[in-house]
Amino acid sequence: MSTLHSYEYNQFLQQSKTIGGTTNSKENHIHLSFGFPYSKRFPLQQLSEASSKAALTQGHTALHYYGGPSVKQLPQWVRGRLRRIGIDAPPEQIRILSGAAQAIEIVARILVNIGDEVWVENPSFFGAIRIFKLAGAKIRSFEMDRDGLLIEPLRKELELRRAGGQALPKFVYTMPNYQNPMGITLSVERRQALADLAKEFGIYIIEDDAYLELNFTGEWLPAIYSFAPEHVVHIGTFSKIIGPGVRLGWAVASPAMQRYIQQFMGGSETNPVMQEIVSTFLQDNDFERYLAGLIACYKEHRDVMIASLNEQFGGVIDIQVPSGGFFLTIRFRQPTDVAKLSAEAEKQGVSVLDGTAFYLDKDGRDVVRLCFTYCSPEQIRQGIERLRLAYDQVRA
Amino acid sequence: MSTLHSYEYNQFLQQSKTIGGTTNSKENHIHLSFGFPYSKRFPLQQLSEASSKAALTQGHTALHYYGGPSVKQLPQWVRGRLRRIGIDAPPEQIRILSGAAQAIEIVARILVNIGDEVWVENPSFFGAIRIFKLAGAKIRSFEMDRDGLLIEPLRKELELRRAGGQALPKFVYTMPNYQNPMGITLSVERRQALADLAKEFGIYIIEDDAYLELNFTGEWLPAIYSFAPEHVVHIGTFSKIIGPGVRLGWAVASPAMQRYIQQFMGGSETNPVMQEIVSTFLQDNDFERYLAGLIACYKEHRDVMIASLNEQFGGVIDIQVPSGGFFLTIRFRQPTDVAKLSAEAEKQGVSVLDGTAFYLDKDGRDVVRLCFTYCSPEQIRQGIERLRLAYDQVRA
Repeated sequence: MSTLHSYEYNQFLQQSKTIGGTTNSKENHIHLSFGFPYSKRFPLQQLSEASSKAALTQGHTALHYYGGPSVKQLPQWVRGRLRRIGIDAPPEQIRILSGAAQAIEIVARILVNIGDEVWVENPSFFGAIRIFKLAGAKIRSFEMDRDGLLIEPLRKELELRRAGGQALPKFVYTMPNYQNPMGITLSVERRQALADLAKEFGIYIIEDDAYLELNFTGEWLPAIYSFAPEHVVHIGTFSKIIGPGVRLGWAVASPAMQRYIQQFMGGSETNPVMQEIVSTFLQDNDFERYLAGLIACYKEHRDVMIASLNEQFGGVIDIQVPSGGFFLTIRFRQPTDVAKLSAEAEKQGVSVLDGTAFYLDKDGRDVVRLCFTYCSPEQIRQGIERLRLAYDQVRA
Repeated sequence: MSTLHSYEYNQFLQQSKTIGGTTNSKENHIHLSFGFPYSKRFPLQQLSEASSKAALTQGHTALHYYGGPSVKQLPQWVRGRLRRIGIDAPPEQIRILSGAAQAIEIVARILVNIGDEVWVENPSFFGAIRIFKLAGAKIRSFEMDRDGLLIEPLRKELELRRAGGQALPKFVYTMPNYQNPMGITLSVERRQALADLAKEFGIYIIEDDAYLELNFTGEWLPAIYSFAPEHVVHIGTFSKIIGPGVRLGWAVASPAMQRYIQQFMGGSETNPVMQEIVSTFLQDNDFERYLAGLIACYKEHRDVMIASLNEQFGGVIDIQVPSGGFFLTIRFRQPTDVAKLSAEAEKQGVSVLDGTAFYLDKDGRDVVRLCFTYCSPEQIRQGIERLRLAYDQVRA
């Protein structure tokens, strides 16, 4: 009898392991590593009412593959939100998908053949890198500064390759607002320059704008998409503004790209029942007011974290203060073994994500990512105190 | 300025187009082509109550990536249902996924490297074939008779390949109960024989059992999985028993396969909010009674269709009477251009799916698939009358 021992599974599975983060479930443990929203802000009552109504009034269509009215309503809603950043795509260019993650995955699969190159920021979102590796891509990362991705190194490399007749990358993956993990926002000039590169060299940009709505300043920068609509896929999600558990996001893209996405979806709609619930929720509630409350809460969490960090780590770290989103990063001024620090922090009762999870070269660069949204202000204070204890242990 | 004209998209996109079916939306049009449930049987009131309750009581966890109690409850529920067919997998070997389609897709991607072979029944489900092609598989089909897939041709080919040192297929994809499109059920002997082949040659079986619960006879045959748990992935779905719009199905598989599935999922749960709604629905209602009503309804629809077919096409066709599921097939005794027939039927106001959609060799084999679940008995009668008119037109 033969067994499955010699069976050849997908060749990219080995190199694309999930970054697990902590699984610590002790009651008193503090999770600053998860990129999760704050449970207390979930609009449970409103969602309860919306879902009850949606099932009764739209269930006869929403329970089918083709879905109910929300399949047209949600793209319209997204369209309205994106006008502020210079995107005015017709609804048929906005496709509802199962979170930003599925949007990234489908677009990557459409664009990548095995061995193709994909360019990302260094550091970048480990979930996206995992998806690109599974699609068979080779990944190369480019440096950022405080204004985001540096464009000149990309231009130089693209020109070199074109001159040498070498293959160009299939796309550049970037998070222009409150970048994960760094919390950095890409400047307007660089958005334009990146769009120009895409047009000049005939490549795509995947613009992952998952945190867009969690804007603490009220200032809106034009999307990269707005400068090169044919070359950019703009991705957003309800995960950060309603909850990840609804598993609904979207991709804004050219009609050609939408046809490919449709083909990958096999003609099926993304969770029609959940679309109906979210659409009903948006229609029946004052979203602007709800969002303002959420933003005020997260801004407060961020400020509590910054105050605690200054108190506990004044003079020891630099803080990258984000103007929105879920995360901030700290950078130790002295070389610090952040992998060791995060392991010790775990023992002290706080989980953080050290830079080794994000940098492609596995160099943590003395960086630690902290999520300020998931925990309460009191937990944040405690967590940063514990992180200081861990730091002292590691230094000792 | 360069454009995207020379851009190389995924090399498998061209050969894996979606089979669209009809998009006819005339009010009086009758759809016997769609594989959809009957809207009037959707348990809207119960789902409305379940979703309202689920959001209020479990939303604080279900709105997160990691989900609420249903993440453990649903696999337990599935486990209970599958005992009847000889599957007793622990809950951690049952993974909730986004419908049977996602289960097929993830497992195919885990098992296939580009150029690998996948074996299917002839005819087979076009949605699965599309997925396999997108994964880069070469597809080969094997014949069925009234007891389902013929096993001896598979054995011969496997032995030939082993003797010649050639590559074996990565898996055999089969639908053992009320096969789509044929409505045929695989005999117990062949289930055992297929499982034996998998063990002997070290290959996988993907056992797509999407229609399992819609059993009109009350007799349960053991799953292929029950004969070779390590070599079989057993797939099921809530689409046929609650509604496709909930987008929830499952894969039962070995711990090793579940680890790969987990890796593909990136640590995220499948739509946690929808899982909570479905789990609450199952807990708060008498599912057996609900299902019995659904089955009685579909059996009646099937019988109405058979009676209409006998009335309209007596002596002209053979009917493959299924013992469950959504579909039956008719085969014309005389050579008939079924593609022409389905085009004419569309004009006459009824959509059907001709065999060319299912047979890999594009030979329709005089076969037409008819879905009996979606339409009312009255619509079914009218639809078959219109099909007869179309048949007369084509013959004339």
